[in-house]
Amino acid sequence: MPTTKDGRGRPRLESVDQRIGAAALELLRTKGPAAVNIDSVAARSGVARTTIYRRYRGRDELMKATVDQLVDPPPLAPDLPVGEKLRWVLDGISDVLENGLGRGATAAVIADSDPDFTSALRARLAARLNAVTDLMNIDVRAGVLDASVDPDTLAGLLVGAYLAEVLRFGSPRDGWTDRAIELLTPAVTPHR
Amino acid sequence: MPTTKDGRGRPRLESVDQRIGAAALELLRTKGPAAVNIDSVAARSGVARTTIYRRYRGRDELMKATVDQLVDPPPLAPDLPVGEKLRWVLDGISDVLENGLGRGATAAVIADSDPDFTSALRARLAARLNAVTDLMNIDVRAGVLDASVDPDTLAGLLVGAYLAEVLRFGSPRDGWTDRAIELLTPAVTPHR
Repeated sequence: MPTTKDGRGRPRLESVDQRIGAAALELLRTKGPAAVNIDSVAARSGVARTTIYRRYRGRDELMKATVDQLVDPPPLAPDLPVGEKLRWVLDGISDVLENGLGRGATAAVIADSDPDFTSALRARLAARLNAVTDLMNIDVRAGVLDASVDPDTLAGLLVGAYLAEVLRFGSPRDGWTDRAIELLTPAVTPHR
Repeated sequence: MPTTKDGRGRPRLESVDQRIGAAALELLRTKGPAAVNIDSVAARSGVARTTIYRRYRGRDELMKATVDQLVDPPPLAPDLPVGEKLRWVLDGISDVLENGLGRGATAAVIADSDPDFTSALRARLAARLNAVTDLMNIDVRAGVLDASVDPDTLAGLLVGAYLAEVLRFGSPRDGWTDRAIELLTPAVTPHR
């Protein structure tokens, strides 16, 4: 909660970068991607437009940095049972989409209502899912996951499990992760 | 393309119900659920507001009738292999969400931006998925699907498979149904 424009001459509570980032993320969550631009972030953060432009070439870079703030998942312990690995991925996905982005932003990507935001979010989501599928590939090679498992398809089904709950019920129902894991486990456990 | 308000005294090309329905569905697809209301449908269809109000008590009923126009899937032949049954469900889901509703309307439900539309679409989707899960339950009892399969969870994963493709890539990628079916088939084929 800084009350000065730039905090010159006294200790600042937050860096300029943090103030820009917090303002952009709050605008994204509360008003959706269309509300995130250099002017609105300048107004909300109290950081001058010129200062923001020194850091970000334009709205597309600002949007990318905003999406990149979404927290990274905790590292995956390599010796979890298969079901627990699926749960870790599901929990990470719903954390990003539910708490990080919010449903309005998720919907904006599906409708592609803001191309800057769509491309920033898709790039971020792809990077996170690639990290997950890299781990799954290791497990396929190690025989922990069945050799027939295509990690990209499995990751898509896990993302979709969350989206379908939101489409059908508004909020994911209690126990939805347990049920999805129970159904998917026989498909991914070595069975040949 | 009727050119008269009510066609009195000569054959009509379309019934009043058809004109109302076509106008409402076109507004939904092209402008999204927020554009569907008694006034806009009256303007687009050329049917008087009072005539529309004689058929629908209000916007919520009009919205429900609009969503109910989405075509029903062809009947499912009972002796298809499991993979073909999954494909039939996937094709039906993507037909409704892609061609019937469009992504803007799907996104509107996820964001819950229009409560009348959200509840109408959820009711319709639930009815269609119930028809699908009824068939799956028959297959579970007959031993065609594994006894551990929860039809509601399977239906959700199939809906989600489509949604995840749209979220991640804009359009479902070529071969996405094949890959989803290949991954899910071992989970639903009797394996105990």
